[in-house]
Amino acid sequence: MSYLCPVLDLAFTGDRASAEPLYRQLGGYLRGLVEAGRLPAGSKLPATRELAAALGFSRNTVSLAYDDLVAAGVLTAHVGQGTFVSVHAGPSASGTSAGGPSRGFVWSGLFALRARTLGVPAGLLPPRAAAPIRFDFRGGQVDCGALPGRDLRRALAEAAGERLAALAAHQDPAGWPPLRAAVAHYLVGRGIACEARDVAIVDGAQQAIDLVARVLLDPGDTVVMERPGYFGAWVAFLACQANVVGVGVDAEGLRTDELARVLRARRVKLVYTTPAAQCPTGAILSEPRRRALLALADEHQAPVFEDDYDSELRYQGPPVAALKTVDSAGQVVYAGTFSKVLFPGLRVGYVVAPRPLLEKMVLARWNADVETGVLTQAALATLLANGALTRHVRRVRTLYAERSVAMQAALEHAMPEGTQWSRPQSGLSLWLTLPPGTDAQGLERAAREAGVAYTPGSAFHWDGGGDTNLLLSFAALAPAAIHEGIEILGTLVCAHAPARRRSAR
Amino acid sequence: MSYLCPVLDLAFTGDRASAEPLYRQLGGYLRGLVEAGRLPAGSKLPATRELAAALGFSRNTVSLAYDDLVAAGVLTAHVGQGTFVSVHAGPSASGTSAGGPSRGFVWSGLFALRARTLGVPAGLLPPRAAAPIRFDFRGGQVDCGALPGRDLRRALAEAAGERLAALAAHQDPAGWPPLRAAVAHYLVGRGIACEARDVAIVDGAQQAIDLVARVLLDPGDTVVMERPGYFGAWVAFLACQANVVGVGVDAEGLRTDELARVLRARRVKLVYTTPAAQCPTGAILSEPRRRALLALADEHQAPVFEDDYDSELRYQGPPVAALKTVDSAGQVVYAGTFSKVLFPGLRVGYVVAPRPLLEKMVLARWNADVETGVLTQAALATLLANGALTRHVRRVRTLYAERSVAMQAALEHAMPEGTQWSRPQSGLSLWLTLPPGTDAQGLERAAREAGVAYTPGSAFHWDGGGDTNLLLSFAALAPAAIHEGIEILGTLVCAHAPARRRSAR
Repeated sequence: MSYLCPVLDLAFTGDRASAEPLYRQLGGYLRGLVEAGRLPAGSKLPATRELAAALGFSRNTVSLAYDDLVAAGVLTAHVGQGTFVSVHAGPSASGTSAGGPSRGFVWSGLFALRARTLGVPAGLLPPRAAAPIRFDFRGGQVDCGALPGRDLRRALAEAAGERLAALAAHQDPAGWPPLRAAVAHYLVGRGIACEARDVAIVDGAQQAIDLVARVLLDPGDTVVMERPGYFGAWVAFLACQANVVGVGVDAEGLRTDELARVLRARRVKLVYTTPAAQCPTGAILSEPRRRALLALADEHQAPVFEDDYDSELRYQGPPVAALKTVDSAGQVVYAGTFSKVLFPGLRVGYVVAPRPLLEKMVLARWNADVETGVLTQAALATLLANGALTRHVRRVRTLYAERSVAMQAALEHAMPEGTQWSRPQSGLSLWLTLPPGTDAQGLERAAREAGVAYTPGSAFHWDGGGDTNLLLSFAALAPAAIHEGIEILGTLVCAHAPARRRSAR
Repeated sequence: MSYLCPVLDLAFTGDRASAEPLYRQLGGYLRGLVEAGRLPAGSKLPATRELAAALGFSRNTVSLAYDDLVAAGVLTAHVGQGTFVSVHAGPSASGTSAGGPSRGFVWSGLFALRARTLGVPAGLLPPRAAAPIRFDFRGGQVDCGALPGRDLRRALAEAAGERLAALAAHQDPAGWPPLRAAVAHYLVGRGIACEARDVAIVDGAQQAIDLVARVLLDPGDTVVMERPGYFGAWVAFLACQANVVGVGVDAEGLRTDELARVLRARRVKLVYTTPAAQCPTGAILSEPRRRALLALADEHQAPVFEDDYDSELRYQGPPVAALKTVDSAGQVVYAGTFSKVLFPGLRVGYVVAPRPLLEKMVLARWNADVETGVLTQAALATLLANGALTRHVRRVRTLYAERSVAMQAALEHAMPEGTQWSRPQSGLSLWLTLPPGTDAQGLERAAREAGVAYTPGSAFHWDGGGDTNLLLSFAALAPAAIHEGIEILGTLVCAHAPARRRSAR
């Protein structure tokens, strides 16, 4: 995993003509950032390999610089976790003071242990100082042009009109009752046996994950998730100081044989999984694996978090049935979201959970931020009740199916031999594996310079790895743009692949 | 939309030569699928027409088969939704476990230590099995009839109109940039030196508190807050397993002499305070206390959280200046909200914090729920920019000032000797102290039976006490209703006060 401190300035170039070795120059530069408070105590530094690549130095130079700073007490190395700014390091003088007699305030020593791991995976940060993005294949986007604006405006006008006084007087951390009822109705249609009181409205699936983590995880507790897996879950678990154990994924989804080994070896407080379309590979959890997962969870009394983030967007046929539909023991927490079928900034999702857990989650929700904004909740209840959402989902399902086909064709045409990619049956993106030996970092730099953006596979590997993968979303681009962008990317992949692969097929 | 269980096998052909009618054969076949666990509880069956077409039978045959199974409790029919496998049906023996009956799932042992303290103060729960509320004096309300509905509808229409595509593509845990800029502009007008980048948008002040707690507090860390004090802060700190130390409050606000003693005795990670109008007493922190608080915080390197939840609603003259305006050391975290000037269900607030802290809070925010809903953010940016919010605040300031006066007059008339109450200079509520020896619990029961609701003082005392206080909000009631409700309450207070007090003055 690599968490960059957001203030880390990569502008350092070094003076190769200087008598001072480069690693000392780099060390002095980093120490300066720490002393200026720009790299606060607890910040994680980039992996040596990453920083070396970013700066154009050898990895050895970066390692030597880190070693020096560890010896000086400025940095701390945690085996298997990386290198961090020491809690005892920090701004030498007055920091933020406006110039009074105050000593100024030093924040660096004040952060909680749980805040040390806070971060956004490096690959998710917007590219810096690169060309403007012309072809944006990064994950998490939808087609903003296809949104049902008129329906949404009507629903909002109703919420801020005749319903406003009732909405404004409402406060319930479980959600606006008509939306809870509409979501329950929607989920019953998908085979999930639930009533309004089994549903809580949350600010997107991310909050459902966070609330479950708050309610179940003490520091040191073990959580299992898919590897590669969804980074949002991973950071939420890390923020609870949980021990995150990865279980492999193949064409049938989560490997239940590996899961069985983990469950036998240690007490697991939660298994997080994306069975309908594994995030990021898209694999659908097979029937035998579903049965095995539930049997294992039952045997070991481990709750299962089912993140069903985009199964409505299945191109052909009905959505894959949720694990929750066969949860006879009541051990599955089911979360869904409107972020994919509408758009992420809406910040509305829902969770169905067994009563004792749901009650705790709702209390934790009140603690966290009281409830989801009622105007948006009311508007969504209207869109669900009047069929506008169903019509919209039908439209975009077709749209994304077409873009998926265009992306497949473009990749077939542009990618060199040895490149592999998934054939998604739903959703907004696919998972590509570069030819063995491709210079992934070089490719990423070159792509950014060419205005092509994607989500690097490393974002889905919290414990390192994933360099040979890319997540490519086709949601926000028309087929012609998909072809054009992938053509450029294919050329760059060829240029960064090992010599024998350098020809498009 | 019809979601089929993917395991539904359509290979059934039936035996037309058999003595058993086809519909019974089909019923037996479907029941077999259910009992084998291949059609799990909650699965939706195909519409009769679809299944008839797929099998080559008449629709009537399928209908009869379904009817039989509904009568037998194997299926459930939901009008307008279709036919589902009953939640009570399922594999006859083993549940989901591959072998052996499921033990069912026991949640109680799974909750984290930090989840043990989750809760809502008892006095805040809605009254149970009592009369309907006729006079609602509970805190946290606004006048829902006075909201600027037309301005809000226009602003929302703009957000979901020309701005929708841009908003939908936006993702930034620090907030929608135009709203950050508008809030910064608004705060500069109140003497707080800040730019857009110093502001983060949050889901109300409660989330600002929660994020600061997440970033600063490890289990066992000490937080100081006012006693009585805001219960939302207290539960957020408890959920971090912090040690919450109360410091007394008098007519000048937080007692800095007590604070000094606490700071000398132990390391304090945060001081939470409401200087503009102490929650719940309404006391304004005096100038000497402000200077003392900041000097102490500086000396002991303790961050200060300033919850400035309603100072815009000052009845006369400009709002009380924030502590943040004189925060030369950069140790004050300032939070405000639109919950009071508009309404709580909006769920939008803001925080201004020193850079190192704000960066961590924004990362924690991404972890928690990514960002505040963009439609509401954009609408608020419009209301701030076009002056509609300022006009609204001016209107409701006058409205609440009038209601405050009406409440004072009503209390003067109705309350027995020995009752005391605050004279608020801003906001939505006042703090009443019952005559010594009043039976507070008896009063609360009697008030509920009479349809009069208020927030009991115990809600603001996390470590017990507060029984002799009530928080009375006058925000949601017209003056005539205030008089009527307080008259009833006054009679009840007389009835529950010690004998010698039992006469209205």
